[in-house]
Amino acid sequence: MNDPHMSPARAQRRKRSERAATASGPAYITRRLAPLDALDEESLQRIEATADRILAEVGIELRDDEEAVALFRRAGAQVEGTRLRFEPGMLRTILRTAPSEFTQHARNPARSVRIGGKNVVFAPSYGSPFVMDLDKGRRYGSIEDFRNFVRLAYASPWLHHSGGTVCEPVDLPVNKRHLDMVDAHIRFSDKAFLGSVTAPERAQDCIDMARIVFGADFVDGNCVIMGNVNVNSPLVWDGSATKVIRTYARANQGSVIVPFIQGGAMAPVTSAGAIAQALAETMVGCALTQVERPGAPVVFGNFLASMSLRSGAPTFGTPEPAVGSLVIGQLARRLRLPLRCAGSFSNSKLPDAQAMRESVMSMLSAIHCGTNFVLHSAGFLDGLLSMSYEKFMMDADFCGAMHSYLAGITVDDNTLAFDAISEVGPGHHFLGSEHTLRNCENAYFDSTINDNEPFQTWVETGSKDCATRANERWKAVLAQYEAPALDAAVSDALSDFVARKKDSMPDMWY
Amino acid sequence: MNDPHMSPARAQRRKRSERAATASGPAYITRRLAPLDALDEESLQRIEATADRILAEVGIELRDDEEAVALFRRAGAQVEGTRLRFEPGMLRTILRTAPSEFTQHARNPARSVRIGGKNVVFAPSYGSPFVMDLDKGRRYGSIEDFRNFVRLAYASPWLHHSGGTVCEPVDLPVNKRHLDMVDAHIRFSDKAFLGSVTAPERAQDCIDMARIVFGADFVDGNCVIMGNVNVNSPLVWDGSATKVIRTYARANQGSVIVPFIQGGAMAPVTSAGAIAQALAETMVGCALTQVERPGAPVVFGNFLASMSLRSGAPTFGTPEPAVGSLVIGQLARRLRLPLRCAGSFSNSKLPDAQAMRESVMSMLSAIHCGTNFVLHSAGFLDGLLSMSYEKFMMDADFCGAMHSYLAGITVDDNTLAFDAISEVGPGHHFLGSEHTLRNCENAYFDSTINDNEPFQTWVETGSKDCATRANERWKAVLAQYEAPALDAAVSDALSDFVARKKDSMPDMWY
Repeated sequence: MNDPHMSPARAQRRKRSERAATASGPAYITRRLAPLDALDEESLQRIEATADRILAEVGIELRDDEEAVALFRRAGAQVEGTRLRFEPGMLRTILRTAPSEFTQHARNPARSVRIGGKNVVFAPSYGSPFVMDLDKGRRYGSIEDFRNFVRLAYASPWLHHSGGTVCEPVDLPVNKRHLDMVDAHIRFSDKAFLGSVTAPERAQDCIDMARIVFGADFVDGNCVIMGNVNVNSPLVWDGSATKVIRTYARANQGSVIVPFIQGGAMAPVTSAGAIAQALAETMVGCALTQVERPGAPVVFGNFLASMSLRSGAPTFGTPEPAVGSLVIGQLARRLRLPLRCAGSFSNSKLPDAQAMRESVMSMLSAIHCGTNFVLHSAGFLDGLLSMSYEKFMMDADFCGAMHSYLAGITVDDNTLAFDAISEVGPGHHFLGSEHTLRNCENAYFDSTINDNEPFQTWVETGSKDCATRANERWKAVLAQYEAPALDAAVSDALSDFVARKKDSMPDMWY
Repeated sequence: MNDPHMSPARAQRRKRSERAATASGPAYITRRLAPLDALDEESLQRIEATADRILAEVGIELRDDEEAVALFRRAGAQVEGTRLRFEPGMLRTILRTAPSEFTQHARNPARSVRIGGKNVVFAPSYGSPFVMDLDKGRRYGSIEDFRNFVRLAYASPWLHHSGGTVCEPVDLPVNKRHLDMVDAHIRFSDKAFLGSVTAPERAQDCIDMARIVFGADFVDGNCVIMGNVNVNSPLVWDGSATKVIRTYARANQGSVIVPFIQGGAMAPVTSAGAIAQALAETMVGCALTQVERPGAPVVFGNFLASMSLRSGAPTFGTPEPAVGSLVIGQLARRLRLPLRCAGSFSNSKLPDAQAMRESVMSMLSAIHCGTNFVLHSAGFLDGLLSMSYEKFMMDADFCGAMHSYLAGITVDDNTLAFDAISEVGPGHHFLGSEHTLRNCENAYFDSTINDNEPFQTWVETGSKDCATRANERWKAVLAQYEAPALDAAVSDALSDFVARKKDSMPDMWY
């Protein structure tokens, strides 16, 4: 990142910060393991044709945003009140201007992430009203919890992105939360982050705060902030969402367009239909960015949940959404759009066996579907109602394992090791061989959460379960946490902006 | 299965049993989701060429089995004492007589499993000296524990196979255990099972017991029992193992040939070399079945573990073996041999978050590598030292989820649901729609272990974690257990065989 406004002192601090960050973990993953394709060409075409038919015959509702309706009308949509219909292929044509890959810049350039293509970016979970830990159980999230999760994500070598609403700071007024949240992302981390999506003026505040950090010119030419925006499935785009999307796009900033689909509720209970509907909805949201500002970065998003047939409640980390995600991945690649899909989902109320069973199933579906941006990578419990400190540490560690998994397998003379096999010979072992010593340092991912000691050692060190170790770990990380440097002038300008905004309106709690 | 020796009463009981079994779960899975290929053609060829070079230049040690050496010499191997070397391609040629797919018959024909091709068979974990549960902690396994795990596997709709040494019955003499183990598989289950591999005469006893159940003629023409036999890596085949392999093959029964590979110890620390070595070792074991009896069923097996770089201990459910398994799958398909690979591995000492994180990672590597037979599908803890009652229930439930996952996604007019989407329309929900009602019953896998209730309901029902629910579940299943019918004459003949064998030798405890 070239920023002409940067002071020498700030540049120096940045350089120091860059070294520290680079030492702690990679900025993002570039995968060497291929995605897994679940469907053949004919089946994919049938899903696409159904999405096209939904768009052309049923159409979507676009409510309370006349400008968005006008933009789509100019682009060729048939408009009947709030109902918009699109000729088959029309949205695909519009989407051609969207970048298939883009950089979201972090204030520490070594932390900028590349979204799209073969790249994978992990961000913390998003949007839980509750937080929980083993000591204090479940309670409403506060801004201090929010800051803690930003700190933990910053400290993790395996999370590339600071996320957005890492938990709801329920102790702050609804109309001012975004100011403190973005302030926390900037002060307590140097990784890239998401801005507010609850109202267009709040999205604008977040962009303005990013301008203070990155400089206005830089922001106009580069993506430094994104909004994660939900469809109101089935087939409704609310004006509050579309205005937010247009706010980010207008500023050349990113949007992640996400239908939250619980099969049987917001979409058909059969996966193929749910995916076709989601494809239709997502294409509309993505296309909106391009009719607002061609070339604006946009991410094709999806969030699939299944349903408990006993209670009707949404379920997570289950097999059907995992397969569905594989299909979503194929569809996104055919659109040549970056993909957000799945995460470390779970319905468990505790960081227990169910939690990691569902979470790993769900995260691996993201990995195998070829996702580029994984929101909800760490902390997700209780069907997204709770952000768990312990699960955050478990999930972040699993994200570390995914770095090794996505590196695939290297086949060359060194790794084939014929000479070592020949030298060691039948019946001997490789523990002390020169080949082992030379290759062992980076041979295996080293978990900081899992216990790999012999049983007796495990007993002697307290017979701790994984949740207890994770509890110790997040406390240790927070105790060791040091905030990344922030230029004093930027810090002051941010504080001033936040104070002025807060003073300009009364607190609102809804 | 046509058995001319079957009495009408027995046939009737069998029919009843068949109905019951069919109602409780499928006999095995035929996958519709494709495997995931990790390597390109060139890299696969390099691994195969390295395996060929190991076989031709380093060779393998075949100790204490002169007949096996003679068989390989006649087949073209170069023999120097106990060192055997094989020309490139020689073993592949020998392996052409091995079936790419075969049926292992169960005493309930509805439970016979098809091994190879697109089929997936789940069997319980194998070989742990300890068992554990939440009530009594870890202790040595007993024959009563063994019978309990056979009962639990029988009762699970998601385990297709009764396995072998589901735990070591340490309370029985070493030289007589196999009699009680096979007796338990036959009496307490009607699913297919594995026989002893600790000595050729014990393998023969197991085959003889199978002959009592299935009839001698049937056994000579059909696979009804298999042995799971380990290589002594690196590159050593011990005579005790090769004689067992030959015992099963001679009787036209199956062998599963498995190098246990901990990278950096029994093989190079780099995956490509470990896999090349394992390929060489496994091809030798598989080929031995064919030089003993062409056409005998054999399964290409593999078991990959990584290493804790802190303690040197083997680690499980880690990312590198998961990728390695994908490669093993590709290699087995190129040999057109059925594959055994991976399972529900974990190093955790408890059925906690670590346990299911590692287990799901490992089981999904089996699923994605295209495995046909998954030993260690349920119960595995503590690096295979312990068989856990609670983890058994968790794993078996996850095997259930794999049935839905491997079914993939169906794309047809019903699942695409255009009419339903059109009828429901934007902004409404699908909960009561005719399409949902018609399709919901089988839409989602219904876990019997996971909690999907709202938080408050979960609190009101005792705030139980997954391990506690699993604990209640295995007790309930055992309490409800009923043994499948067994013909009285067969039962008596088995008892008589076991008693005679036990009387024929003194107890041995090593």
